[in-house]
Amino acid sequence: MASQVLPPSFSSDIIQDRTDGYWIIPFQLSPEDHLPGLVVSGLNSGRVQFLENPKNKISNQDGGSEETTWDVHDIYPFKEPVSVIAADVTENGSLDLIVSHQYGPNMIECDMSGGWVSWLENPGRDEWDQGGYKQWTKRDIGRWPAMHRLRAGYFTQRSILEIIAAPVVHGKEDKITPVPILRFQAPEKPRDATEWQRDVVDDQHFSVVHEIVPKKFDGPQGVDSLLVASREGISRLYFENAAWHVDILNISEPREPGQTTGYEAPGAGDNWGCGAVDAGKVGNDPFAYIASMDPFHGGKVCVYTKTDRGLDTVKWERHILDVYGTPTQNRKWGDGPGHYVVCGDFDDDGDDEFLVSLIGALDRDEDLNVKPIQGGFNPNKGIMYYKAIDLENGIFAKWRIASESSARIALGDFTGNQALDVASISYNVIDYYEEPQPKVTMHTNDIVLPPTASLADSIRATLWDGEGMVYLAQPLEIKAPASKPLIQVANYAISVEIYPSKSKVPINNGEGLKVIYGSLSETYDGNVTTRKPLGGEPFPALASTTSKVEALDADAVLGAIILRMTPTPGAELEWEDVEPETQWEKASDVPIHVTFDLKESGLEMPEYKFTRVDQLWWGKDDERFKDQEFYNMPGFHFRFLDSKIHIAHIQFWTAGTKVSAGAHNHANDYFEEIHVSLSLGTKDGGMSMVKPENEDDAKTPDEAEELPDDKWIHEAQEPLVEHGSMWHRDSSGNAIRGWNNVVSYPWHKWQGGSGDYIDVWMAIEFNPDLEL
Amino acid sequence: MASQVLPPSFSSDIIQDRTDGYWIIPFQLSPEDHLPGLVVSGLNSGRVQFLENPKNKISNQDGGSEETTWDVHDIYPFKEPVSVIAADVTENGSLDLIVSHQYGPNMIECDMSGGWVSWLENPGRDEWDQGGYKQWTKRDIGRWPAMHRLRAGYFTQRSILEIIAAPVVHGKEDKITPVPILRFQAPEKPRDATEWQRDVVDDQHFSVVHEIVPKKFDGPQGVDSLLVASREGISRLYFENAAWHVDILNISEPREPGQTTGYEAPGAGDNWGCGAVDAGKVGNDPFAYIASMDPFHGGKVCVYTKTDRGLDTVKWERHILDVYGTPTQNRKWGDGPGHYVVCGDFDDDGDDEFLVSLIGALDRDEDLNVKPIQGGFNPNKGIMYYKAIDLENGIFAKWRIASESSARIALGDFTGNQALDVASISYNVIDYYEEPQPKVTMHTNDIVLPPTASLADSIRATLWDGEGMVYLAQPLEIKAPASKPLIQVANYAISVEIYPSKSKVPINNGEGLKVIYGSLSETYDGNVTTRKPLGGEPFPALASTTSKVEALDADAVLGAIILRMTPTPGAELEWEDVEPETQWEKASDVPIHVTFDLKESGLEMPEYKFTRVDQLWWGKDDERFKDQEFYNMPGFHFRFLDSKIHIAHIQFWTAGTKVSAGAHNHANDYFEEIHVSLSLGTKDGGMSMVKPENEDDAKTPDEAEELPDDKWIHEAQEPLVEHGSMWHRDSSGNAIRGWNNVVSYPWHKWQGGSGDYIDVWMAIEFNPDLEL
Repeated sequence: MASQVLPPSFSSDIIQDRTDGYWIIPFQLSPEDHLPGLVVSGLNSGRVQFLENPKNKISNQDGGSEETTWDVHDIYPFKEPVSVIAADVTENGSLDLIVSHQYGPNMIECDMSGGWVSWLENPGRDEWDQGGYKQWTKRDIGRWPAMHRLRAGYFTQRSILEIIAAPVVHGKEDKITPVPILRFQAPEKPRDATEWQRDVVDDQHFSVVHEIVPKKFDGPQGVDSLLVASREGISRLYFENAAWHVDILNISEPREPGQTTGYEAPGAGDNWGCGAVDAGKVGNDPFAYIASMDPFHGGKVCVYTKTDRGLDTVKWERHILDVYGTPTQNRKWGDGPGHYVVCGDFDDDGDDEFLVSLIGALDRDEDLNVKPIQGGFNPNKGIMYYKAIDLENGIFAKWRIASESSARIALGDFTGNQALDVASISYNVIDYYEEPQPKVTMHTNDIVLPPTASLADSIRATLWDGEGMVYLAQPLEIKAPASKPLIQVANYAISVEIYPSKSKVPINNGEGLKVIYGSLSETYDGNVTTRKPLGGEPFPALASTTSKVEALDADAVLGAIILRMTPTPGAELEWEDVEPETQWEKASDVPIHVTFDLKESGLEMPEYKFTRVDQLWWGKDDERFKDQEFYNMPGFHFRFLDSKIHIAHIQFWTAGTKVSAGAHNHANDYFEEIHVSLSLGTKDGGMSMVKPENEDDAKTPDEAEELPDDKWIHEAQEPLVEHGSMWHRDSSGNAIRGWNNVVSYPWHKWQGGSGDYIDVWMAIEFNPDLEL
Repeated sequence: MASQVLPPSFSSDIIQDRTDGYWIIPFQLSPEDHLPGLVVSGLNSGRVQFLENPKNKISNQDGGSEETTWDVHDIYPFKEPVSVIAADVTENGSLDLIVSHQYGPNMIECDMSGGWVSWLENPGRDEWDQGGYKQWTKRDIGRWPAMHRLRAGYFTQRSILEIIAAPVVHGKEDKITPVPILRFQAPEKPRDATEWQRDVVDDQHFSVVHEIVPKKFDGPQGVDSLLVASREGISRLYFENAAWHVDILNISEPREPGQTTGYEAPGAGDNWGCGAVDAGKVGNDPFAYIASMDPFHGGKVCVYTKTDRGLDTVKWERHILDVYGTPTQNRKWGDGPGHYVVCGDFDDDGDDEFLVSLIGALDRDEDLNVKPIQGGFNPNKGIMYYKAIDLENGIFAKWRIASESSARIALGDFTGNQALDVASISYNVIDYYEEPQPKVTMHTNDIVLPPTASLADSIRATLWDGEGMVYLAQPLEIKAPASKPLIQVANYAISVEIYPSKSKVPINNGEGLKVIYGSLSETYDGNVTTRKPLGGEPFPALASTTSKVEALDADAVLGAIILRMTPTPGAELEWEDVEPETQWEKASDVPIHVTFDLKESGLEMPEYKFTRVDQLWWGKDDERFKDQEFYNMPGFHFRFLDSKIHIAHIQFWTAGTKVSAGAHNHANDYFEEIHVSLSLGTKDGGMSMVKPENEDDAKTPDEAEELPDDKWIHEAQEPLVEHGSMWHRDSSGNAIRGWNNVVSYPWHKWQGGSGDYIDVWMAIEFNPDLEL
């Protein structure tokens, strides 16, 4: 959380001047449209309109000039339309519209013969254009008085489109009887149907329902369920095991002593519970917090966080972040200013911020008449932007991003800038809050993202008992390569890098690349060769990790995780007074600098050094190593970030003139190892393996150590050269396993040569249970 | 999470050399003991022993020398004791011991007539000393074969002590039948009882139970419930609604294909599920993660984190952090090396780390005979320390803190250093893992805590629409004062500070202290005066915020939250080229520097400046302010961290010669305000209030503005002076409320005087609904 927060930055343009205002959604008129337009409406004008995104127009249509006007097209005239939603009713690939209308002047005086839900068939952009934007075909779905919010989705099954429709109250002058929340199921022949099949989802739990928000709370494969904002608070309404269930997550604004249930309340207002709700993602938790405005049309901005007191249940703790509104508005009469809440990731950091819509200030005198309000800016009008800073303590930061009246918000990338833009419509409903000069405003997201935003998601690091631990994303899951420096040793800077599948992996002259997961392919002189973690042909084959090409190709399916070894004299040499050289007399002369940075985690890496093997726990009782110029140094672990599965471990070694690193066969170890030489100071040092015909000539390490040179195969190993596998392999090339599933090896060792300097090499120990 | 992690630091002393080793707990022999001692035991020696903490001895007992030897006292000899726990069976205030014993040589060959649970009555330290440490009285509770783990607590009710007893297997050569977990209820007369009332808690769910850990998962007021580590994984076993319930939280190590349920498994081992478990706190979540070693006596160190996919349920995601053990030990034969897991906050940062006990390496040859193991250090032996770095991704850091064999760990402040120390006993059980030279080792926690560790818990900060937001802990909940700088303005550095109840609040000459919550009392010349947020006597009374004493006393019950105003020429003057002065010609000359730091939250505070009121939204249409030398500047919000309840808001003002800050009566505001003067450049400026007899002479602000001087009461207000309340008060001194519950005020204003410079003052607006 403590990384730099990018403050919001939006530039605003008025895109429609209106006479009223209530509803706004993003709407893609045609499946071919590159960017969404908007559908807007108001209760009093009755018009449902499409606002055409100017960036969608063909640029030469108006003589090639940059078009910025949002053309307004009437779709259909209704009596008091409330909600408009989009869904593909005809299943032809184009979105149709579904509208609740004939509401009445307000919820108390709702039209008892109205509350219709109807759908409008999208004629298609071409047809509509040619018909001079003639009206769409309207067909009815069903009705209930005071019908208010609509949502489309798959709530009880995954096959047939369903509309959930929620009246705000049960009927005229009745805020007490629980409302019937209806489910309409799309018919097979929607053009012929006179109405749609309907069920009552619930008519026992909810009164004064001001918002329903569909969410996939059981994961992307689950059915849709709903967050309901009502006088009862915030609830989850969901279908499971063939029945609808209601979980009240929090009562939100509690009913105060003195609050009556009557619809006329000259004293205490009759609103409590929740008025608007959405759920936000933080980190890995898609429902990390709930944001709300409480109560109905109320001014309290609240967030709810999980208290996690128990092992297997969640309680939601309420934090009141702000109380907007004039003293009148705080009487809970439903006078505003809060109307809408929506979550979205506006700064692209993976966490959802949330916005709240404030309609504006409203005051009443002691006769309850609305008093004229000062025009222009008012603190109770606009859009506020909240970002979680410390979710556990319910601490957010807040910015104002708009100052005009906002009834609701439509989110989308309306400008094609890959960021979430904000479109808003002013609140203007007759005899309630009437914003002068209502309008639709586009707030273009101007946030500038830092270029390295994805590294933290791809590579995570920690300290692991004195070594570095690197957790790596699956290359399949990343979009861009990521790299983390590990160490500079023997004049090579070594880093670990992840590449998505099919990406290019650049390589400079003199560099080595060692794959530890996936593969790298190299095309040279028309020949394609592929590098894999466990090497190519078995020992005594050797292979260079360098290349003559400029870039290799990461595996087309798996991508690649690699170690890059860059000579430091030509690269970043971060420590000073070390002259570039490539050979050293003793281990303590080898330049070493740990570049692995753990500051993000608040940790510090130790500096590494070579330790003589006769001082290590496993070497100190072995007479073969006594006083030998044979050294070891810690290294790094590599694991997958999601599964934590071990990929490999690296460590470093040195051996002097004629020194044997000890014949062994890993009878009690559990890995497949490959060595990459970094410096060959003994001139002809390298790996030695006992000849296959002599494998049984020694039963113990000491006996193996005594075997004469002619019973060994030896290969000198130049810097940046790796050797082929030494472990026993079956006819398919897989490692043969011995007692306790260890990987079976012949006797082998690194054998220093006759030169006067020391050999330095890196051992890579692979997990034998991982497919590599 | 990204604050600096303190690496663990422990110094080790061997405090007992033993012949075997299995069990260790902290034990306070007498309620008067300052520090706990230890109770230890081993299966083969059979001795349950008390190790006397040398720091508990009277220092002159042995001639005054610093005593460091842990004296060993035999308590009672048993045949194969397994678990020993402490509980006050006799209810006399001293802890007694409860022991499971007569186990048999191992679980497969368990003694079918054994498995006794007995209790040992603590004779009291004096009695025991005088009797030459004679044995304690043993009485039986009950039994079941293979009785293994015991826990004391209140599991089904809150009144009568209960013991939960869990056999490891059902009986001889039977690892398959679920074990009977027993509940024993303490009798009224434990000294006379021949056995205790018992129930079977569960005999359907759990096989191979290796650990039960009591936790209060329903909060501190709830009953105890248990985490169970068994072949079924990690479960919660709890009593609710008159019945025992089992929730499997995670199956932990899954059963692999080929694993049989037989107790002899020459091929695949017959252990899966979980072997040891504990739950750790992080931040506000007391059960933020579960740590385990899997399976029975296995080497996998795992943590489980909440995935939070849903709204009201928790799933636990498993992260395998490490796999210890030789290839033999990884066969899942139960050969070790993992034996115990325990969570604790060792670095006092509020988050639990966890420790794991590793008994040591064990290998078997192909005839399953145990092979001799190299002595001394072994990576599979010791205690590892894990700390959560990124809990969401399951990322921890790891350190080794001990290298000797560890069977179990006792945590406690054994050294009186206020930090959690670690005592450990080696694992040595005949015919299984026999550590040579087993011992008890004390690892003293040497961690050095930074002095300001508690600030973050007391004061949290964020950005709030261009102002600073300060969330403050309840003074009741903090242990030490905490302070956060806010702003330097008009040559005063202003900070907000919290003081626990009864603490001393220092004040320097020239400083002002303004209480905003709780109170401050001052004793001078024998008189006690008390400062409260809403001031003392009503206006026209004035009071200075300075003092002649050196320290004031924070409220004995509530503590205090204060604003401290320190003259900057003598204090930290963080900005440059500002000459100390106290008067300015215009608002833009007033030195301002926001010192409120939001770096911890990744946010940046804007710099503040004074804005002329005729450019503010509420002032721009008011003719009275046109071109007037009347300025306003943003300030800070103060709220409680836990409840988020608003305490007060501050902001800053300036007014020039003869300038009126506008008569008003807050008819549409909602606060109680007090002003503190910072500079009195107009010489006789200050608050003006219309005389009570003239209150009705004006109906509007404009009319009030026109009232002649003789209808006003005016008081010049020197720097650091506050005025008394101006709002209307009832006979109890409480604010009178008007329409919409606003606080009722007479007409009032700040009125600039005749001097040539400007006045600068701070307004504090208090929440009228908060008891202050």
